[in-house]
Amino acid sequence: MNLKRYLPILQWAPQYGRSQATSDLVAAVIVTVMLIPQSLAYALLAGLPAQVGLYASILPLVIYAVFGTSRTLSVGPVAVVSLMTAAALAPLADAGSPEYMAGAVLLAVISGLMLTLMGFLRLGFLANFLSHPVISGFISASGIVIAASQLKHVLGVQASGQNLLTIGQSLIRSASDINLPTLAIGAGALLFLVFARKQLKPLLVRFDVSSGIADILTKTAPILAVLVTTLVAWQFQLDQQGVRLVGIVPSGLPDLTLPSLDWELWQQLAVSALLISVVGFVESVSVGQTLAAKRRQRIDPDQELIGLGTANLGAGLSGGMPVTGGFSRSVVNFDAGAETPAAGAYTAIGIALATLFLTPAIAYLPQATLAATIIVAVSSLIDLPALGRTWRYSRPDFGAMLATIVLTLAHSVEAGIIAGVVLSLGLFLYRTSRPHSAVVGRVPGTEHFRNIRRHQVEICPQVAFLRVDESLYFANARFLEETVMDLAACEPELTDFVLVCPAVNLVDASALESLEAINERLQDAGVRLHLSEVKGPVMDRLQRTEFLSHLGGQVFLSTYEAWQVLAGDCELSKGLA
Amino acid sequence: MNLKRYLPILQWAPQYGRSQATSDLVAAVIVTVMLIPQSLAYALLAGLPAQVGLYASILPLVIYAVFGTSRTLSVGPVAVVSLMTAAALAPLADAGSPEYMAGAVLLAVISGLMLTLMGFLRLGFLANFLSHPVISGFISASGIVIAASQLKHVLGVQASGQNLLTIGQSLIRSASDINLPTLAIGAGALLFLVFARKQLKPLLVRFDVSSGIADILTKTAPILAVLVTTLVAWQFQLDQQGVRLVGIVPSGLPDLTLPSLDWELWQQLAVSALLISVVGFVESVSVGQTLAAKRRQRIDPDQELIGLGTANLGAGLSGGMPVTGGFSRSVVNFDAGAETPAAGAYTAIGIALATLFLTPAIAYLPQATLAATIIVAVSSLIDLPALGRTWRYSRPDFGAMLATIVLTLAHSVEAGIIAGVVLSLGLFLYRTSRPHSAVVGRVPGTEHFRNIRRHQVEICPQVAFLRVDESLYFANARFLEETVMDLAACEPELTDFVLVCPAVNLVDASALESLEAINERLQDAGVRLHLSEVKGPVMDRLQRTEFLSHLGGQVFLSTYEAWQVLAGDCELSKGLA
Repeated sequence: MNLKRYLPILQWAPQYGRSQATSDLVAAVIVTVMLIPQSLAYALLAGLPAQVGLYASILPLVIYAVFGTSRTLSVGPVAVVSLMTAAALAPLADAGSPEYMAGAVLLAVISGLMLTLMGFLRLGFLANFLSHPVISGFISASGIVIAASQLKHVLGVQASGQNLLTIGQSLIRSASDINLPTLAIGAGALLFLVFARKQLKPLLVRFDVSSGIADILTKTAPILAVLVTTLVAWQFQLDQQGVRLVGIVPSGLPDLTLPSLDWELWQQLAVSALLISVVGFVESVSVGQTLAAKRRQRIDPDQELIGLGTANLGAGLSGGMPVTGGFSRSVVNFDAGAETPAAGAYTAIGIALATLFLTPAIAYLPQATLAATIIVAVSSLIDLPALGRTWRYSRPDFGAMLATIVLTLAHSVEAGIIAGVVLSLGLFLYRTSRPHSAVVGRVPGTEHFRNIRRHQVEICPQVAFLRVDESLYFANARFLEETVMDLAACEPELTDFVLVCPAVNLVDASALESLEAINERLQDAGVRLHLSEVKGPVMDRLQRTEFLSHLGGQVFLSTYEAWQVLAGDCELSKGLA
Repeated sequence: MNLKRYLPILQWAPQYGRSQATSDLVAAVIVTVMLIPQSLAYALLAGLPAQVGLYASILPLVIYAVFGTSRTLSVGPVAVVSLMTAAALAPLADAGSPEYMAGAVLLAVISGLMLTLMGFLRLGFLANFLSHPVISGFISASGIVIAASQLKHVLGVQASGQNLLTIGQSLIRSASDINLPTLAIGAGALLFLVFARKQLKPLLVRFDVSSGIADILTKTAPILAVLVTTLVAWQFQLDQQGVRLVGIVPSGLPDLTLPSLDWELWQQLAVSALLISVVGFVESVSVGQTLAAKRRQRIDPDQELIGLGTANLGAGLSGGMPVTGGFSRSVVNFDAGAETPAAGAYTAIGIALATLFLTPAIAYLPQATLAATIIVAVSSLIDLPALGRTWRYSRPDFGAMLATIVLTLAHSVEAGIIAGVVLSLGLFLYRTSRPHSAVVGRVPGTEHFRNIRRHQVEICPQVAFLRVDESLYFANARFLEETVMDLAACEPELTDFVLVCPAVNLVDASALESLEAINERLQDAGVRLHLSEVKGPVMDRLQRTEFLSHLGGQVFLSTYEAWQVLAGDCELSKGLA
C-alpha cells in the first residue's frame, strides 16, 4: 500500500496491455517530434549548449514514469524554468562556459533534492500560497521577457539582459548590426509558425484532410521549420554569411555527471533553486490536475513533488538542466491519446535515438529558427487581458498581479515571483486585520439576522447585536476592542451586547485576552457581554479557559435564542432599508 | 484641527493650570530619582559610557511632551531596546569605542526617521501583527538574557556574548577571576533591592508609615543603593581592590551630534533599527494604552509613532541612544499622579541638573550596583508560566511563543522576534489554508442549522448543506474544490448542493475560479450548486462577475429559505447527536 504510494508505477504497470501500449506509442512519436526542437531551444534560452536540452529530455522522463502520479504530464525543459535558470546562472559565469554548465547541473540537483524532501514532508500544500493572479501575471510577464530575449537571435545581433529594460537597451545599441540572412530565416520561420498555428488547420480541413490528422500536421510545423531552415543553411553555407548555427553537437548519450561539492556555490544557488522548484511544481501540478480532472483521475501533489524531484535529480546526474511538466507539451500528449506515463518513457527513447543519430544534422540548424519556435510557443502564455478582469473583480488581487508583472519585466523573474507572493499574503493579512463588521437586526417574521444598513430589520435599542466577519486573532484583536467599545459608547441605553460569531472560525490567545478586556470594560459600564452562534471548535477551546466563568452574560446557541431572551419585551424600532 | 493632531501638546497646554503643574512636578521628582540609576544602567547594558544614558533622558523627553499622545508615558532608555542596541552594534565595533558610540547615535536617528515616516504613513496598525504570545515570550527571554549579561558585573569578571549560551560559556571560563569586593557590593545591592521590592512596603506600613509614602520610599530603593555603594566605594577606595566603577563622567549638557553619513553603515544598521523601532513602539503603545484606558483617555497609535520617532531623532542629535516608553517607569509616573506630558519635561530638567552637577559623584558608583538594579528591574518582566497558559489554550500560539523564547535565548534577540512574527503569521495562514468545514442540518423546529456530527439535526439525503468556516482565498481555493467534490462523490442521490456562507468574509479571484470550476463539475454530475447566507460585501463583488449567471442553482438569503425550497418535500433523516 505504502509502496504503491511512493511508486505509482505499481498502480498501472501490472494492468498494462497492448491497446494502452499502442496509444502511448502514438502519443510518444508526436511528442518526440515536438520535443526535439523545444529541448534544443530551451537549452539555448537557458544559455546552455543545445545538447543539454536533449540530455534533460531522456533520463528525467523515464524517472517521472516511475515516480509521477499524472498519467499524461510531459516532463522536460520548459520555457519559464529555462528563463529562471538563465537568470540564476548569469551572475555566476559566462553563458555556455564549463562553470555555467556545472551550475545548471547543480541547480537541477539542488532543486531535485528540495522537491523530493518537500514531497516526503508532504509540503505540497505550499503551492497553494501562490494565488492564481500572481501565477498568471508571472507567466505572462515571463513570456514577454522570453520573447524579448529571443529577438537577438532573430535579428542576428549580440544582446544580453535579464529583464525587458536591459534587453531592450542592449537590442537598441546593436540595432545597426542586424544580419539580413539571419533576419530572413528568423522572420520566415516566425511567419510560418504563426500561420501554422492560426490558419493551417482550417486550410487543411478545407482540403478534405480529417480534423485529427490536420491537428497532428499542425503540431509538426516546428520540426518542419527546423528541417527546411537546416537544409537551406547547409545548402547555402549560411554560416559564412554570418548566420549563427547550432554548430557541432557531440553525438551519443550523456555521461553520468556528478554535481559540484563547492558548498559556497550550493548556498549561492539555493534561493534560485527553491524558486525554480516552486514555480516548476506549480506549473506542473496546475496542468496535471486540469488534465486528470478531464478523465476523472487524480494526482497526488505530495507524490508529484517526489516525481518531479527525482526527475530533476536524474536531469542533474545526466548533464542536463532543471525540468518540469510543460503546459503545451502535456496537452499535446493528452490530446494524442497518451494513457499512462509509459508514453513519457517512449518519448525518452525517441530523444535518445535523436541524440545518437540526428546530432550531425543539427549542426546546420540556425539559432534563429529555434528562437522563432520559442517566441511562438511563449506567445500563447501571455494573457494581459487577465489584468483587466482581475481589476474589475478585486483590487488587492490586481495589485499583487501588477506588482508581479512589473517587477518581472523591469527587474527579474525572481523579484517578480517573490513580490507577488509577499504582496498577496500581506494584502490578505491586512484585510483580515481590519475585518468587516455589521450591527444586525432581525429580518421580521424570521429567525434570520442581517445588517441594519442593508436590510429592513427590527432592532432593540437596549441590545446591540454585532456580527464580526472574521476569525479573531492577534492582527485584529485590538481592532475588535475598539469597534466594540466605540459602539458601546454611542448607545447610552445599552444593557446587553451580543457578539454574533458565525464567521469566527478561530479565537487565538491574543483575541482571548481582548475578549477578556472587552468583557471587563463592558461590565464596568454596566453592560453584559453575550456570545451567539459560537462554532463547535471555537467553543471547545473557550471551555478550556476561565473566560466563560468571567463572562457577564451567556453563550447562546443561535442569535434568535439570544433575541428571544434579551429582546423579548423590547420596544422594537426599524433599521434602515 | 490637523495641527492639533500632529501637535498633541495643543490639546492640553492651553488648559494647563496650577493643580496640574503641582501633580506633574511631584511625579517628575519621583521619576527622576528612579531614572538616574536606570539611565546609567541601561547605557552600560547597551555597551555605552554611562553619560549616554543621561543624554538620552533629556531632549527626547521634552520632544515627546510636544508630539506624544500618552499623558503618562515615561520615555527614555529601556532594558529591551538597550539589549537590542548592544546586539546591533556588537558586530560593528568594540563596546565603548567612538565608532560604537557613533553607531548608537545612528541607530537612534535611523529608528527615529523610520518611526516618524511610519507615523505619517499611518502604519501604526503594523504593530498588531506582533501577537501577544510572541511579545510576551520575547520580553521574558530578553529579560533572562539581560539578567545573565549583568552577572559579570556582579561577579567582577570579564565576559561577553549576545545570548544565553555565549554568555554562559564566557562566565564559566572566567569563574576563577571572581572579585570578592565586587561580589560583596553586587550581591549586597541585589539582596537589598529584592528585599525592598518584596518586603519593604509591608514593613513600613507596619511601622505606621502611610501606604502612599511607603510606596514612594520603596521606589527610591535603587537610588539609595546607588548612594550607599558609591559612598562605600569612595570611602574605601574600592577601585584599588579591583572593583569596577563608572569612572569619570564628563560633566555638562550634551553637545549637538550629527549622525554619520556613511551610507554603508546606514544599510548595515537598517534591519536592526527597524526591529528596535517596532519592538520599542509595541512596548510603548501597550503600556500607553493600558494606562490611558484606566483614566478613559485614548492614545493615537499613528501619532505615537511620530512622538517616539521625533524623540529618537532628538536622542540621536544629542549624543544619546535609542529610547522608547518604558513599562515600569510609566507605571510609576502614572501612580505618582502625572497628569500631562509636562511631567516628562520636568523629569528632563531633573536629569539635566544631574548631568550638570552630580557627575563627579557618579565617578565612584560601582558598576555592580547598576547591574543589580538592572537584574531586579528585568526580573519582573520574566513570565515563564505564560508558556503553560498558552499551551493549554492554543498550540500554534504556544509554538510561536516557544520559538521566540528559544531563539532569543540561544541565538539573538533579532532572530527571536523575527522567528516569532514569521511563525505566528505562517501558522495563521496555514490554518486558514485548511479551513474547518461542516455538513449541517436543521435543528428541529428552528431555522437554525448546525453540524450533523455535533447536534441532533434533520438532514435531507438529496440536498447537501456544507458550511465552510473560512474566507475563500487562494490558499484554500484548491482545498475547497477537493472538499466539495469528495462530498459530492460520496452522496450518489444528491441533486442539490448548498454552500452555506456565513463565515465567508471574502472570495478572492482565485477562489472565484474555484467556485466556477466546482459549479461546472457539479453540473456535469447533475447536481445544482446553490449559495446561502452570502454576506453583503461578498455578494456585491460576485454581482460584478459572470459567476452568478453560470450558477446552476440560486443564491438564498438564508439557509432556512434554501431548506424550504429544496428540502420541502424531502423524506428527512436524523443526523448523529
